[in-house]
Amino acid sequence: MSPRLRHLTTLENLPRPTVERLLDRAEQLRDACAHGTRKLDVLTGRTVLNLFFEPSTRTRTSFELAARRLGADVVNFEIGFSSTSKGEELLDTLHTLEAMHLDAIIVRHKQTGTPDQLVRHAMSGVSVINAGDGNRAHPTQGLLDALTIRQHRPDIENLTVTICGDVRHSRVARSDVHALTALGVKEIRLCGPASLMPAADELAHCHRIDDFDQAIAGADAVIMLRLQKERMETIELPDEAAYFSLYGLDQRRLALAAKGCLVMHPGPINRGIEIASDVADGAQSRILEQVANGVFVRMAVLSEVLAR
Amino acid sequence: MSPRLRHLTTLENLPRPTVERLLDRAEQLRDACAHGTRKLDVLTGRTVLNLFFEPSTRTRTSFELAARRLGADVVNFEIGFSSTSKGEELLDTLHTLEAMHLDAIIVRHKQTGTPDQLVRHAMSGVSVINAGDGNRAHPTQGLLDALTIRQHRPDIENLTVTICGDVRHSRVARSDVHALTALGVKEIRLCGPASLMPAADELAHCHRIDDFDQAIAGADAVIMLRLQKERMETIELPDEAAYFSLYGLDQRRLALAAKGCLVMHPGPINRGIEIASDVADGAQSRILEQVANGVFVRMAVLSEVLAR
Amino acid sequence: MSPRLRHLTTLENLPRPTVERLLDRAEQLRDACAHGTRKLDVLTGRTVLNLFFEPSTRTRTSFELAARRLGADVVNFEIGFSSTSKGEELLDTLHTLEAMHLDAIIVRHKQTGTPDQLVRHAMSGVSVINAGDGNRAHPTQGLLDALTIRQHRPDIENLTVTICGDVRHSRVARSDVHALTALGVKEIRLCGPASLMPAADELAHCHRIDDFDQAIAGADAVIMLRLQKERMETIELPDEAAYFSLYGLDQRRLALAAKGCLVMHPGPINRGIEIASDVADGAQSRILEQVANGVFVRMAVLSEVLAR
Repeated sequence: MSPRLRHLTTLENLPRPTVERLLDRAEQLRDACAHGTRKLDVLTGRTVLNLFFEPSTRTRTSFELAARRLGADVVNFEIGFSSTSKGEELLDTLHTLEAMHLDAIIVRHKQTGTPDQLVRHAMSGVSVINAGDGNRAHPTQGLLDALTIRQHRPDIENLTVTICGDVRHSRVARSDVHALTALGVKEIRLCGPASLMPAADELAHCHRIDDFDQAIAGADAVIMLRLQKERMETIELPDEAAYFSLYGLDQRRLALAAKGCLVMHPGPINRGIEIASDVADGAQSRILEQVANGVFVRMAVLSEVLAR
Repeated sequence: MSPRLRHLTTLENLPRPTVERLLDRAEQLRDACAHGTRKLDVLTGRTVLNLFFEPSTRTRTSFELAARRLGADVVNFEIGFSSTSKGEELLDTLHTLEAMHLDAIIVRHKQTGTPDQLVRHAMSGVSVINAGDGNRAHPTQGLLDALTIRQHRPDIENLTVTICGDVRHSRVARSDVHALTALGVKEIRLCGPASLMPAADELAHCHRIDDFDQAIAGADAVIMLRLQKERMETIELPDEAAYFSLYGLDQRRLALAAKGCLVMHPGPINRGIEIASDVADGAQSRILEQVANGVFVRMAVLSEVLAR
Repeated sequence: MSPRLRHLTTLENLPRPTVERLLDRAEQLRDACAHGTRKLDVLTGRTVLNLFFEPSTRTRTSFELAARRLGADVVNFEIGFSSTSKGEELLDTLHTLEAMHLDAIIVRHKQTGTPDQLVRHAMSGVSVINAGDGNRAHPTQGLLDALTIRQHRPDIENLTVTICGDVRHSRVARSDVHALTALGVKEIRLCGPASLMPAADELAHCHRIDDFDQAIAGADAVIMLRLQKERMETIELPDEAAYFSLYGLDQRRLALAAKGCLVMHPGPINRGIEIASDVADGAQSRILEQVANGVFVRMAVLSEVLAR
C-alpha cells in the first residue's frame, strides 16, 4: 500500500495507487452524502485554515465546505494580498499559525513553490495542501478532473484527452496532466497558440497539436482552459472572436471528437471566448459535475492528510 | 393549511395564513430561546450560504446568527461587488453553488428581481431567500416589522400604520406594506417628499398624505425610513435640517399619534435627520425589538424553507 | 476569592488573585489540549462576535480559535474601518448587536477607551473583551506575556524585565507592565528613544534607562516592541540600521542579560530593525510560545467572562 500523504503540494510523480486511493475515497464520500449523510465527524475538533494570498471565492468555498462536512472547524485567514511579499514574513506567518495548533493549512499563492516552502519549514505536525501556486500546480483540481473522467470512463487507459487554451500559464493543465499520467491515460494532447504552449522540455510526453480541429479529433474528453483576458495582448490575436474561431469549443468542433466526448472546464467559464454557451450547457458538459466532485475530492484529501 | 414555502423572494400576494405561520413560528423560537435554549439542531448538517452583492453587515450577521442557532453551517461567499454584472455570470455562480450541494442561498443584490431569477434557474433543491433586491422587496424585514407590531397590538385589523420617508426607493417600505396588508391592517399611510413617493399606480391601496403632521395623526405605529444621503440632491431640499423639520419624527409629532404609538425604524438610524435622538431612544421606540425579532423571523423562514 | 470578571478592558488595577486565576486557567486549558482534548463544550450555544475596527488577522484568529475550541460560535462583524467614526454610531452598533443576543463582543479600536464606552452603555448581559484600544491596553497580550514568563520562571517576584522600543505608543507595553506589576515582578525597565517614552508621570514605578546595553544588563526577560515604521520620522533617526544599532536586540546585547534571559516580542517581528534574525529564531526566543499561550489565555478569559 502506498504510504499516506501528510501534505499535498503537487500530483507530479505521485504513484498511481495513491491517486486511486484518493479518488476511491472521494467516491465513497460522494456515496455517503448521496445516501443522506450530510455531515461526518471524521475531523471533529480539527481546525483547517484557509491562507489565500490570491482571491478565490470558488476554491476557498469548496475547501471550506469539504472541511465542515467532515466536522472540522474552518478559519479564513484573510491576509492582505500585498503583504508577506518577503519570504521571511511568509515563514513567520507559518510559524505563528503552527503555534496556534492548526491541523491543516490550505494555501494559494501566486508564487510557484510557496506550498513546498511551507512544507520544508513546518516545525509541527501541520499538513499543507496546495490550492494553487503560480503556474505550477493545483492538485485538487487535477484530482477532481481525473475523478470526473474516471466515473464516466473507467477504461481510462484507453482514453485520449485534449487540453486546450493557455497551457503555459495554467496550473490546472499541469495538475491534470500529472493526474491523468498517473492513471495511465493513453494520450494527452495539448493545443493552443504557440506563445501559450509550455517550454518544449516540459510535459514532453504530451502531444502538441497546433490546430484545434486536429487536436480534438477522436478525443474522449476535452478540457478547455479559462482564457485570462490579460493574456490577449501577448498572444497577438486581434480580439475575442478571433480567439474563439481558432481555439473555442463549439458544436462543430465537438462533433469531431469521439462520441460522448466529455466537455470539461475548471470554471469560471468565459462564454463565447473559449467555449460556446450551448456546449457549456449541453448534454456532454461535465462542468457542474466537476464542481460537485471538487468538494468530494477535497474531503478525500483532508481526510487523507489528517487521518490519525 | 397553506402550502410550505420553498423560497422566499417577496411577501407580495402571500396568503395571510402563510404570513401568520411564519410569525407564529418566530414567536415559538423566541420563547424557546427565552427559556434557555441557546441552540437548536433543526438544521444540523445543512449549509446556508450568504451571497451578498451589496455590503450589509447587519442583515448578513442576523441571517448568520439565525442559521447557526438552528444548527446549520454558514458560508459567506464574498463576491466582488463589481463582478457578476452580467446575468449569465450570475447564473453560472448559482449553478456552481448548487453543484456544491448548498441547502439555501441568501441573496442581496442591487438589481430588482435577482432572487426570482435564481429561483427560476435553480436546478437542484436549493432554497432562495431574498435579503433585499433593488427597491423591490426585503421580505424578512417586512415580517420582522409585522411581528413587532403584532406582539404589541394583536388587534392588528384595527391599526393605522404610517410609513414615512423615501418610500419610492425603499424595499423595506414595500415589504412592510405587503406584510401588513396580508395581516389585514386597517389603514396604511405613506408620507414623504413628492419626488420620493412611488408611482401613482403602485401601492395604490395605501393613503398618501403629504403633510407628516396629518399623516401621523392617530397612527398606532410609525415606521421611519432611513434617508439615503445621496438622495438629498434629488429631493431639492436645502439640507438635513430642512428635511428633519418636514419629515423628521420628534416628540411634538409623536404626540399627534395615538397613545402608545410604536416607533419603528429598520436601522441604521440617522439621528437628527429622519428621527430625533430622544424619540429613537424613548419609551415608545421598538427599534431594538425589531433587531431582536429579525433573528427569530429569519430562523422561522430558514426552518420553513428547509423543513424536510 | 476575587470576584469573577464580566468584562476585560484593561489589566490596570486588577488584583493579583484575578490575574493568577486567569493564568492558572490558561495552563489547565493548555494541559487539557496537550492530553488530546481538541475541543471543549464549555461555551456550546454561546456566540462571540469579533468587532474589529482596526485590521488584525493574528489577534482576530487567535480569539476565533479560542472561542471555537470552547465550543462557541464566532461571527466576524466586518465593519468598514472608516464608518462608525461618530460615538453615537458606535453605540447604535453596540445596541444592535446586543439585540441579536450575543454573549461576548471582542473589540479592537484605534480610539483609547472604546471598550469601556461599550461596557458603560451595554444594556444586556453581553461581555466586552478588549483586543486592543489605541495606545492604552491589550489585556490578553499582557496576560499571555505574563504566562510565558511565569511558566519559565515561577519565581516571578525575583525577576527583572526589560521592555524596549516605542513604549509611548504601545498598548502591549502598558498591559505587560500592568500584568507584571500585579504579579509582583521585582523590577520593570523601560528603554527606547526619549521621544518614544511615555509621559513622566505614566508608568512611574518602572525604571527608565536610555542606554539599551544598561537596560538589558542582568535582565531575566526582554520584551522587544514592534517598531511602527511610520514612527521613524518622529524619532529623528536616520534609518533602520541606526535604530537597530541603538535599540535592536542582537547576540552581543543578549549576552549582557542574565543567563537564559527570555526573548519575547508580540509579533509580527521586523527582523533586522528591532531584533536580529538569529535572536528571534534562537534558543532563548519565546516568541512562538507567546503565540501558543495567546490562544490559551483567550480561552481562559472567554470562559471567565462567560461562565454562568
